[in-house]
Amino acid sequence: MATQQTTEPSLDSLIRLVDADMKRVNQVIIDNMHSEVALIPQLASHLVAAGGKRMRPMLTLASAQLCGYQGGTSAVDLAACVEFIHTATLLHDDVVDESLLRRGQASANALFGNEASVLVGDFLFARAFVVMVKNGSLKVLDILAKASAVIAEGEVLQLSTANDMATTEEAYLEVITAKTAALFGAASQIGAVIANRSAEDEEALRLYGIYLGTAFQLIDDVLDYSAHQATLGKTVGDDFRDGKVTLPVIISYAKGDDEEKAFWRRCMEDQEFKDGDLDRAQELIRKYDALSASMDRAREFGQLAIDTLTRFDDGAIKDAMIEAVEFCISRPY
Amino acid sequence: MATQQTTEPSLDSLIRLVDADMKRVNQVIIDNMHSEVALIPQLASHLVAAGGKRMRPMLTLASAQLCGYQGGTSAVDLAACVEFIHTATLLHDDVVDESLLRRGQASANALFGNEASVLVGDFLFARAFVVMVKNGSLKVLDILAKASAVIAEGEVLQLSTANDMATTEEAYLEVITAKTAALFGAASQIGAVIANRSAEDEEALRLYGIYLGTAFQLIDDVLDYSAHQATLGKTVGDDFRDGKVTLPVIISYAKGDDEEKAFWRRCMEDQEFKDGDLDRAQELIRKYDALSASMDRAREFGQLAIDTLTRFDDGAIKDAMIEAVEFCISRPY
Repeated sequence: MATQQTTEPSLDSLIRLVDADMKRVNQVIIDNMHSEVALIPQLASHLVAAGGKRMRPMLTLASAQLCGYQGGTSAVDLAACVEFIHTATLLHDDVVDESLLRRGQASANALFGNEASVLVGDFLFARAFVVMVKNGSLKVLDILAKASAVIAEGEVLQLSTANDMATTEEAYLEVITAKTAALFGAASQIGAVIANRSAEDEEALRLYGIYLGTAFQLIDDVLDYSAHQATLGKTVGDDFRDGKVTLPVIISYAKGDDEEKAFWRRCMEDQEFKDGDLDRAQELIRKYDALSASMDRAREFGQLAIDTLTRFDDGAIKDAMIEAVEFCISRPY
Repeated sequence: MATQQTTEPSLDSLIRLVDADMKRVNQVIIDNMHSEVALIPQLASHLVAAGGKRMRPMLTLASAQLCGYQGGTSAVDLAACVEFIHTATLLHDDVVDESLLRRGQASANALFGNEASVLVGDFLFARAFVVMVKNGSLKVLDILAKASAVIAEGEVLQLSTANDMATTEEAYLEVITAKTAALFGAASQIGAVIANRSAEDEEALRLYGIYLGTAFQLIDDVLDYSAHQATLGKTVGDDFRDGKVTLPVIISYAKGDDEEKAFWRRCMEDQEFKDGDLDRAQELIRKYDALSASMDRAREFGQLAIDTLTRFDDGAIKDAMIEAVEFCISRPY
């Protein structure tokens, strides 16, 4: 009997399979963030150089590969557009959240000011559309324009639910579906679109992205309470300090006694903080196993994502897309 | 001999000629700023209800009419897109400038906070692209996507030149061409595009918009020092307090003596203000006739705008477009 080595799931297979194309994506990104106005490439390259996981453009490339997309520059160009839209939303997010760290580095707004972050975000967003128009698919433009509107809606909805302990799990899921999963869904779907696959294949890949994105954000919100700051690359406890009502908080609050509920309301709603409040929050979250419960929800969405791939041919890229889901759930960063 | 009545040029003729279509534009705007997320239509309608001159969408409608565009919904839909893009940039501008007044009302960021202004701006911008995609012209998408990128570049360039008394008239004109004139140009050009006119007609109308937009912004910058606040609908002296180096300042500085130059540098570069500084600035601007000189420049651009129309058939809409230029130069608000 062969011994089976169990290893942690990783993005390595996916990265390897899309590596050549990702190099071209990077070049498209660099070419299109060029501007005579020096501050624009300076600020944009600060963020782009910091890297990140590049999940979204990889999804476009992987999805295209899974659908047998051959040659042409569409997959590469559109993957770059997806990353531009994501980068624009990050720049605007950091202004909204007043974040000081992003991808392990000082955030753009901390370094360059809110004004530049807003405007360079606008620039990247507009450039994404310039590249999409050049690519020429009205269907892709429609998908990404609509996704962009939904992302903004999700972010506004998040503002509206922040500091409100009456936020339900349902409302929370609505926020993360819009602000995060929509772009994962669009990124995956356009891989099928450019490969001219059926509406059913398109929809399957859109859902793959939606479910994966939901799981991804659930884990992001878990990591905000559990991660090591150095590994996470952003400030632990940001969501807590911002009063963002995420699933671990919703679960702990629901199970808490009156005194604990008052604690959550003081911090999240009144934004009145004392020394040790983050520790207390983490302790309550542990007490009610709220991180495990959140991870269970992430696992459910992960399984839904994997199930959408059943209709596609088996192969290395499909395996890598399955492992990417498993990575997103077990990731430490 | 008939007596000729001289009246102040106004937008009335233009407004009358595009009135029926502008009502439809308003409906498209209202329909497309709808969202389940209540804060979005709340904030957007605050700005839209405040009105403004609606110059840009009127340019699209007027230009289409001048080009003999018949029927169809393109002109109306695209005019609404132009206004959405403009509104998005206003929302982001007010965040950047920390303006408290816009169109005579409390600005959106003052009422709803910077976060919501950034995100609702993003939403409107994305929705503009959704409507353009539905309209289906890749050429129009290209023009408006590129204009959007140029606007953002212009705003960043303005950030870079702010608080810098070494800014030349040339650099200033570069800023206003990008941040203001580009959208006027695009708005006018697409009227010719949807009417299927020649590349030369398109270019003529693009230039009409560019020159008109440049004149418009020159006057805007004059009004920031000369207007009555109640008439202007925004705070007089905003540019001065923000350290925006506009043409009246560039001219006064160039002609100023050492002590006056030091005054401008203290205010604009060091942003150190004392009581009465705005009065002093206005006095120096008067001393060197800098507002008249700026208005002369605006008149030159206005004449260029009018000249671009020579190639088009005479008629009521052409007359109205000429009068619109004259209004933009003589306007008190």
